[in-house]
Amino acid sequence: MRPSGRKTDQMRKVSFERNFSKHAEGSCLVKFGDTHVLCTASLEDKTPPWLRNSGKGWVTAEYGMLPRATGDRMRREASAGKQSGRTQEIQRLIGRSLRAVVDLEALGERQISIDCDVIQADGGTRTAAITGAWIALHDCLKWMETRSMIKVEKVLKDHIAAVSCGIFATQPVIDLDYLEDSAAETDANFVMTGSGGIVEIQGTAEGKPFSQDEFLILLGLARNGIDELVAMQKQAIG
Amino acid sequence: MRPSGRKTDQMRKVSFERNFSKHAEGSCLVKFGDTHVLCTASLEDKTPPWLRNSGKGWVTAEYGMLPRATGDRMRREASAGKQSGRTQEIQRLIGRSLRAVVDLEALGERQISIDCDVIQADGGTRTAAITGAWIALHDCLKWMETRSMIKVEKVLKDHIAAVSCGIFATQPVIDLDYLEDSAAETDANFVMTGSGGIVEIQGTAEGKPFSQDEFLILLGLARNGIDELVAMQKQAIG
Amino acid sequence: MRPSGRKTDQMRKVSFERNFSKHAEGSCLVKFGDTHVLCTASLEDKTPPWLRNSGKGWVTAEYGMLPRATGDRMRREASAGKQSGRTQEIQRLIGRSLRAVVDLEALGERQISIDCDVIQADGGTRTAAITGAWIALHDCLKWMETRSMIKVEKVLKDHIAAVSCGIFATQPVIDLDYLEDSAAETDANFVMTGSGGIVEIQGTAEGKPFSQDEFLILLGLARNGIDELVAMQKQAIG
Amino acid sequence: MRPSGRKTDQMRKVSFERNFSKHAEGSCLVKFGDTHVLCTASLEDKTPPWLRNSGKGWVTAEYGMLPRATGDRMRREASAGKQSGRTQEIQRLIGRSLRAVVDLEALGERQISIDCDVIQADGGTRTAAITGAWIALHDCLKWMETRSMIKVEKVLKDHIAAVSCGIFATQPVIDLDYLEDSAAETDANFVMTGSGGIVEIQGTAEGKPFSQDEFLILLGLARNGIDELVAMQKQAIG
Amino acid sequence: MRPSGRKTDQMRKVSFERNFSKHAEGSCLVKFGDTHVLCTASLEDKTPPWLRNSGKGWVTAEYGMLPRATGDRMRREASAGKQSGRTQEIQRLIGRSLRAVVDLEALGERQISIDCDVIQADGGTRTAAITGAWIALHDCLKWMETRSMIKVEKVLKDHIAAVSCGIFATQPVIDLDYLEDSAAETDANFVMTGSGGIVEIQGTAEGKPFSQDEFLILLGLARNGIDELVAMQKQAIG
Amino acid sequence: MRPSGRKTDQMRKVSFERNFSKHAEGSCLVKFGDTHVLCTASLEDKTPPWLRNSGKGWVTAEYGMLPRATGDRMRREASAGKQSGRTQEIQRLIGRSLRAVVDLEALGERQISIDCDVIQADGGTRTAAITGAWIALHDCLKWMETRSMIKVEKVLKDHIAAVSCGIFATQPVIDLDYLEDSAAETDANFVMTGSGGIVEIQGTAEGKPFSQDEFLILLGLARNGIDELVAMQKQAIG
Repeated sequence: MRPSGRKTDQMRKVSFERNFSKHAEGSCLVKFGDTHVLCTASLEDKTPPWLRNSGKGWVTAEYGMLPRATGDRMRREASAGKQSGRTQEIQRLIGRSLRAVVDLEALGERQISIDCDVIQADGGTRTAAITGAWIALHDCLKWMETRSMIKVEKVLKDHIAAVSCGIFATQPVIDLDYLEDSAAETDANFVMTGSGGIVEIQGTAEGKPFSQDEFLILLGLARNGIDELVAMQKQAIG
Repeated sequence: MRPSGRKTDQMRKVSFERNFSKHAEGSCLVKFGDTHVLCTASLEDKTPPWLRNSGKGWVTAEYGMLPRATGDRMRREASAGKQSGRTQEIQRLIGRSLRAVVDLEALGERQISIDCDVIQADGGTRTAAITGAWIALHDCLKWMETRSMIKVEKVLKDHIAAVSCGIFATQPVIDLDYLEDSAAETDANFVMTGSGGIVEIQGTAEGKPFSQDEFLILLGLARNGIDELVAMQKQAIG
Repeated sequence: MRPSGRKTDQMRKVSFERNFSKHAEGSCLVKFGDTHVLCTASLEDKTPPWLRNSGKGWVTAEYGMLPRATGDRMRREASAGKQSGRTQEIQRLIGRSLRAVVDLEALGERQISIDCDVIQADGGTRTAAITGAWIALHDCLKWMETRSMIKVEKVLKDHIAAVSCGIFATQPVIDLDYLEDSAAETDANFVMTGSGGIVEIQGTAEGKPFSQDEFLILLGLARNGIDELVAMQKQAIG
Repeated sequence: MRPSGRKTDQMRKVSFERNFSKHAEGSCLVKFGDTHVLCTASLEDKTPPWLRNSGKGWVTAEYGMLPRATGDRMRREASAGKQSGRTQEIQRLIGRSLRAVVDLEALGERQISIDCDVIQADGGTRTAAITGAWIALHDCLKWMETRSMIKVEKVLKDHIAAVSCGIFATQPVIDLDYLEDSAAETDANFVMTGSGGIVEIQGTAEGKPFSQDEFLILLGLARNGIDELVAMQKQAIG
Repeated sequence: MRPSGRKTDQMRKVSFERNFSKHAEGSCLVKFGDTHVLCTASLEDKTPPWLRNSGKGWVTAEYGMLPRATGDRMRREASAGKQSGRTQEIQRLIGRSLRAVVDLEALGERQISIDCDVIQADGGTRTAAITGAWIALHDCLKWMETRSMIKVEKVLKDHIAAVSCGIFATQPVIDLDYLEDSAAETDANFVMTGSGGIVEIQGTAEGKPFSQDEFLILLGLARNGIDELVAMQKQAIG
Repeated sequence: MRPSGRKTDQMRKVSFERNFSKHAEGSCLVKFGDTHVLCTASLEDKTPPWLRNSGKGWVTAEYGMLPRATGDRMRREASAGKQSGRTQEIQRLIGRSLRAVVDLEALGERQISIDCDVIQADGGTRTAAITGAWIALHDCLKWMETRSMIKVEKVLKDHIAAVSCGIFATQPVIDLDYLEDSAAETDANFVMTGSGGIVEIQGTAEGKPFSQDEFLILLGLARNGIDELVAMQKQAIG
C-alpha cells in the first residue's frame, strides 16, 4: 500500500502551465503532485568558449531549490557560497538529457539556458524538471521560429521526459513521492525520448543490492509512465 | 503620463496568496502588479550565537531572485559563489523592517527565517517582499499560537508595509514599475507601521539632487499607499 | 546630555589632511573626532566593461576597516574571504554619492577608484568617508587638470558632504559618536551637495518608529552640519 | 576493431598493489591498463555530526586527479578553489558504492575516509577507483581487526567492483579506454557486489538514444567483467 | 650610487609612533623612510583550538596593504576574496619571528593578534612590520602587566628586529627602498634578536646566483643595522 | 644519534624515475627516502598576461599533497576551497628556483607548468620537489628540442638542486626526515646551482635563535649534499 493510496503503476497528477514567466522566451510551471518546478528557457547570444566559430550552439541547465521548498529549511546555496554536489549532479543530468534531442548545429551559435527552480518539493524534482524543461525549451524554440531564427522541427528532434521508479516496501512503484523516496530500497531515474529510446538510466540500491529482474520491472514501469508524460506534453503544446 | 496609464498616486493591483507553500509555517505569494515574490517564514529552534541564554529570539531574512525573473537572465548567485551587494542590502533591510514590530523577548529563544524569493520582477521587489513577508511572519506566529508556543498579539506589535515612490518625468509617483524605476530621477523606499510610524526611509537621487519639498511629497504619497497596503493585509488575514 | 559634552547641534572637530599618500593622485586623511578615514583616489585607464566605447567614465568606491579600528578586533575581511553586507552597502553608498556630482562624460573613458579605509573608528565612518572622499576626488581631478586631461570645473559639478543625525536619549543630535550610535533610537545618514540638494537619505528606526516631525528636525540639523562641512572643504582646497 | 586491439569482452590488464602507502591504514594502487589510481583508507575517530550517539559509523570518499594525469593539463582544483561537478559526482558514487557492502553499525562510531587520486588517466577512472577502494577499505578493516576494534566479516558484507561498458563503433565493448570513451555512442558504468547484486547503474546516451536490448548486452558484459574483478580482488587479499 | 643618495650601510630614517591607535592594547606606526606600517596588538581571550588546556598561549600575525599603498593601485584582497601567496608568506614570517622571543607558557592561555597594515609602501614592508610589531607586542604586554595578568620580563625574552639587505648595482647595501628592491640582483631579509641570535634568514637570487662571500657581507650589514634598530626600540619604549 | 641511524652528513637514498607519466612532456618520480614526489612538466602555449608580446616565456610551479601522504590525514585543499599558506609558499619557492637557471627569452613565449605532487611525505618534500622538478623540466625541454622548438643548452643554464639541513639534538645534520624535522631546533633549506651558486636560503629558528657559526656549518653540509644531488641528476639524464 502506497502512502498516497496510488496504485503501483499510477503516477501523480501531472500538469504543465506554459508561459508562467513574463520575461523568459519559454517557460513552464510543471507539477508532479506536490512537486512544483518552474522551468524557464533563456536565449543568450553568447556561446560557450569551446564552441566559438564552430557553427554549433549549446543547451545548458541550472537547478536550484528555494530554501523552504522542503520540510525543513535548507541553507540557501547563494549564501553558503557554493552549489552542493547534488545540485551539480542534477543540473548536469538535465542539460545532458535535453541535448540528447537537440541538433546543436541546427540551433546555430547560440546558447539556451534552462533554469529549473523547485518552488515546492515532494520527491522526484529532477524528473519533473526534465519533463517541464522540455516544454520550456520547445516554447523558446517556437519563439525563435516566429522570428525566423530557426525551424523548430530541425532543432528539436524528439520529446524528452523522465520519471523515477523504485522498490518501496518490496513493491516496484512509479513516481515516488518524498515518503516513498526516503524509505525506498532501490531508486532509479529514467530519461527517455518520445520514440522510446533510452537517454539516461540511474539506478541506485539504497539498502540491499537489486537484481536484473527487479531492474527490468522498474524499466517497464518507467516506459509506460514516460509514454503518458509524452502524451501530456503533446497535448500541452498542441 | 505613466507608462502603465496609472494615476500618480495609484498603486498597482496588489494581492496576497496565503499558504502558498505546503511546508512552511507561514507563507505568502505577494503580487504588486507583475512583481511576484514568494515569502516563506520558517521556524527554527536554533537562535543566533550572540543571543544564547538571553531569553530573546530573532527574525532574519534572506532575499533571492530566480535567474530569469528579470528581462535579461542574471547569473545565478549560487553558481557565482556569492550574493551581490544589492542582495545583501535588501535582505538586511527586510530583516530590520520586520524586527521593528516584533517583541523579541516575547518570541522566546527561537529564530524565524523569512525567505523572499522573486519569481518575477517588474520593479519594487524589496517593497513587495517586506509587505508580503509580514503576512508570512504573521501566519508563522499564528501556527505557533495554535501550538501554545506564543501569543501573536504579544509578539507582533504592529503591521509593517513598504512602498517605493519616485520622481518620474518630473512627476512624483507611487509604486514604480521597472520602466519607471529605470528612468526615475529620484527613487525612495518607505517602510512604515500600521500606526503610521516610520521604520525606514531610503532616498536616492539617481540623476539630479532632490529638494526637501520634493521629498515631502514622496513621503505623503507613501503614507497613503502604506495605509492602503495595511488595510489589504488586515483583510487578507481577517 | 551627550557623553562627549557636545551640544545637540555641535559636530565633532573635523580636519582634512590632504596629500597624505605619496602615491595616490589624490588623497585625504579625514578626521571626525576619533573617527579617522584615509581616502585615496586612483586614476585608472581601464573603464568598466559596460561603458566601453560609450565616451563615459566611472567613479567607484571601496571601503574597509583595519581589524583593530574598533574596540574589539574584527575579523579581517581578506582572511574571511569576503566583504560583509555592511561593507558592501557602505561602499555602494560612497560611490553613488560621488557620482551624483560628477559629469561622467566630461571625465572621459577613465575610472577613478576611491578607497576609504578606516584607520580608527568612533561612529560615523561612512559620513566621514564621503566627506573626505570628495577631497581626494577633487585632488585627483586637479592632478589630471595639471596634465591637461580634463577641466575640474567641467567634471566636478558641486561639493558632496555627509553627516549622521539621530535621536539619542529623546534628543535629536548631530554627528553621533560610537557611544551615541549604539544607544540611539533612530539613526539617519544624510548626503547633500554644496548647493543644498539632497543626494541620499537613509533613516532607520533602531528602537521605536519615528515620526515625520522628528525626521524633519534631523534633516534640519543635517543641513546645517553639511553647510559647515562644505565650508571646511572649501577652505581645505582653497 | 578496438584501438587497443582488445576483444569486445576483454578488459585491460588489471593489477592491485597493496600497502602502497606507508602511512594509511589501508592502501592500494590499482591499475586498469594505463589508468592508475591510488586508493587510501584513513581511519578517523570523528564521525559525521548527524551520526553522533547513533552507534553507527560512516564510510566516505574523495576523488581527485593530478593536474597532468590527462593528455592536456587540467587546472588544479585546489587552486581553482572548488571541486568540479564531475569530481563531486564521482566521489559521491564511490562512497555510496562502498557503503552498500558495509554494516555501519558493526563498524561503530568511526569514519573511514577513502581517497582516490588518479595518478594517470586513460578512461574508466571511477570504475578503477571503486574496485581499488574496496581493497584499501578491506585492508583498513584488517588493520582494525588486528587491534581488536572490529571483526572484518561483520563489517564488510561482500565485495564491490565496477566496470564501464559502452557502444563503440556500433559494438558493445567492456572497459573503455580514453580513445573509446571519447568516441562511444553510449557509456554505462556498473557497480556490483561479489554475489552479483547490482548497486549502481549509470547509463548515458552520448550520441543517439539506446535501446533496452543494447542495454542488456552491456549489462551482461559488465556482469562477466565484474566477476573477473572480484576474483582478482580475492586473489589479491588472499 | 644609491638612488636615495644613502651610503651602502645607511638605513633610512626610522621612527616609531607608539599608541597610534585609541583602541588597541598596543600599537605603533613604524616608518622606514616612506614605508609606513601600522602595527596593532590585540589581546584576545580565545586561544587556538590546538592549545586548549595546554596552559600555553599564542602570538599570531596578519598582514595587509591598503590598495593604494603602492605606486599602482592593487586589487583589494577582501574584494578578490582571498589573500595572495605573498601576503600569507609575510604574515607567517611575522608571527614566527615574534614567537621566537615569547615564552608562550608565561603568556598563559591567551592569544595576541598582531595586525600589520601597510599605509604606504616603499620597499621593506615586512622588515618594518616585524620591527614595529615588536613595539606593539611589548606595549600590549605592558598593558597586561598593569592589570597583573603577566610579568613582561617573563613573557618577552628579547628584542626582535629585521632588515633587508641586497646587492644593488653590484654593491651590497642595507634597507632597500622600492627602486633598489625592484632592480636588486639578490635580496635577503634578516630577522635577529637583541642579543644577536639569528631567527630567520631568507635570501633569494633575483638575477644570477650569489656566492657565500656575498651572503656573508649582507649578513654583516644586517647585523649592524639590526643593532641600530634594537637601540631605537629601546629608546622608544624607554 | 639520528633516528634513522644515518651519519650527520649522510643523505637518504635518493632516486629519480624518469618518464613516470605517460602524458606529460617531462616527468620524474623523485624519492628522498620515504618522501616521494611526482613532478610533471607541462608545456602550454598560453603565456601569462604580463608577458604577452614580450618574446619571453615563463616557468611556474604548483605543489600539492595527497590527503593521506602524511601520518594523519589532512583535509584535501580542493575540498577546503583554498590552498594553505604553506602550499603557496612552497610552490612560489619551486617556481623561483627553477627560473633562476632558465633563460626565459630563449624559451620563447610559452609557459612550462611544473606540478609537484607529494605521494608520500617523510620530511623534506620541498627540497625533493625542487630536485626532481629540474629533471622533469629538463626532459620537457628535451621533448621540445626533439621538435626543433628550442635548444636545451640555450634555455637551461645550469642544474638546480635543494636539500634541508638543521640542528637536531644539538648536532648539525643533513636531509632531515619527519622525525628530525619535527624536533629540530633550527631548520634551513638551501637551493643551489650545479656550479655552486646560491639561489635560495631559508633558515628558521624553531626553538632558540642560531648563530652565524652554526649557520655556516649547515651551509657547508648543504653544499656537499647538493653536489651529490647534482651528480645524481647528471647520471639520471646521462
